[in-house]
Amino acid sequence: MEKGQLIELIRSKRSFLCVGLDTDPEKIPSWLKQEFEDPVFEFNRRIIDATIDLVVAYKPNLAFYESQGSSGWRSLEKTMDYLHSLKDQAVFTIADAKRGDIGNSAIHYARAFYDRMGFDSVTVNPYMGEDSVKPFLANNGKWAIILALTSNSGSRDFQLQEPVFAEPAGSIPQNKKNLFEQVMERCMQWGNENNTMFVVGATRTELLTRLREIAPHHFFLVPGVGTQGGSLREVAEKAMTKECGLIINVSRKIIYASSGKDFDKKARQQAGLYKIQMEILIRDKLII
Amino acid sequence: MEKGQLIELIRSKRSFLCVGLDTDPEKIPSWLKQEFEDPVFEFNRRIIDATIDLVVAYKPNLAFYESQGSSGWRSLEKTMDYLHSLKDQAVFTIADAKRGDIGNSAIHYARAFYDRMGFDSVTVNPYMGEDSVKPFLANNGKWAIILALTSNSGSRDFQLQEPVFAEPAGSIPQNKKNLFEQVMERCMQWGNENNTMFVVGATRTELLTRLREIAPHHFFLVPGVGTQGGSLREVAEKAMTKECGLIINVSRKIIYASSGKDFDKKARQQAGLYKIQMEILIRDKLII
Repeated sequence: MEKGQLIELIRSKRSFLCVGLDTDPEKIPSWLKQEFEDPVFEFNRRIIDATIDLVVAYKPNLAFYESQGSSGWRSLEKTMDYLHSLKDQAVFTIADAKRGDIGNSAIHYARAFYDRMGFDSVTVNPYMGEDSVKPFLANNGKWAIILALTSNSGSRDFQLQEPVFAEPAGSIPQNKKNLFEQVMERCMQWGNENNTMFVVGATRTELLTRLREIAPHHFFLVPGVGTQGGSLREVAEKAMTKECGLIINVSRKIIYASSGKDFDKKARQQAGLYKIQMEILIRDKLII
Repeated sequence: MEKGQLIELIRSKRSFLCVGLDTDPEKIPSWLKQEFEDPVFEFNRRIIDATIDLVVAYKPNLAFYESQGSSGWRSLEKTMDYLHSLKDQAVFTIADAKRGDIGNSAIHYARAFYDRMGFDSVTVNPYMGEDSVKPFLANNGKWAIILALTSNSGSRDFQLQEPVFAEPAGSIPQNKKNLFEQVMERCMQWGNENNTMFVVGATRTELLTRLREIAPHHFFLVPGVGTQGGSLREVAEKAMTKECGLIINVSRKIIYASSGKDFDKKARQQAGLYKIQMEILIRDKLII
């Protein structure tokens, strides 16, 4: 999906919500497991049917499928086939795989998610540098969504790490750069705003202004709203652009809103609450 | 596999060779594809049969299986089942998956590779920090093999990145630390030499002494010997310990030694050449 199409999708749906399909067989309603041969796919299908008019993106996290082995991968393939069958409902798809390997291997990962499963984008871990990132940038209309500053507590360990020095703190020069800043600046040289997005955690609102200064025109994929506690309004205030520039992901708060027969209706209600807030934010910014 | 068992395996086999099962359907002999329903598994089975007495480890790279979708994952599951069926032939197994995600997801990845497929170890990307690494350390006899300094050209981009400063180079203090050093030091606080190894590329021999100083007792998984040009002797001279402390991986040079009917015999010959060199190095160090 090209950038223009994504912006048009956000405008027409008045939403920049992404639903994270972190479908854990232990957490889905137990009756699904009794009634269906592939309860993970059935869960996803019902969540999609219940929410697709409210969202611009779906983001399956590969960890939840891989823990079921090859049958989990099959459930994910069926989910993607189902999304592609809904031809009148355009939606952006994100393989939350956080892959990163040497060039030769990265080409195979890109093939797995772009060509075989038809995802629009893959989340990419930048630790291994240029040749591990570039294969994800080589396909028109496909996107590398690069981990910059993630929403978890571990982001302090390296991403926020500053140079280590013997001198007292006061003597550290002003232009030192954290790892996440180095990552963003370097990746912006390899790709551009039409094939690169950044993962920016909603739990780091104090840094959002700085992140937006570094990349004024790139889309940010923002996890951490919902269960992890990030504020949608604060993210929008600090990082929304004239083109929106945000895809906000919510997983557990939506897909596990209920474990009853009506789990899909409850998921729709939750998604609707986020969507209404987003519509207001979009109107405030005069994006519509 | 416990550390003591791994060292005993290296002693008894007089080898610290790992064969990388980077099995690419486009590169395996074409006759396999005509004769077998699952040529990837058949290729792996024959490579294993031809080399298992010469090696201490096998390392399938997930990228090559995922590019075949769920059927690729099935080929990998069958390969692992086959390895587990060879009860009289102990071997260490490495899922070269380079995973890294927030704690909740990392638990699912650990489950996928340790519990479901029975790997002894997983390669782990440290970019997301403590909660992304620790779930791979929580199982007795299982190992996180953490990316420190990789063998590819992109390792210069962040792993070798030094702090950025305005002052002239001469004014940079002596105790500045590259990212890979920060990663090793931090990960050594989270785990220990019985559940943590580091990936250290053989193409970075000028830094091997420094790496060994940082982690004198940890095993290093060393890719980059073979097609990528790293020197086995130089790696051993700079980083071998009294317990060996090295697992050296070779992929393409061994598994694609021939595309004929005799590909497995040629793979054995190649593996044998590395094994002889390793036996000499082991004897020199008085490990036997």
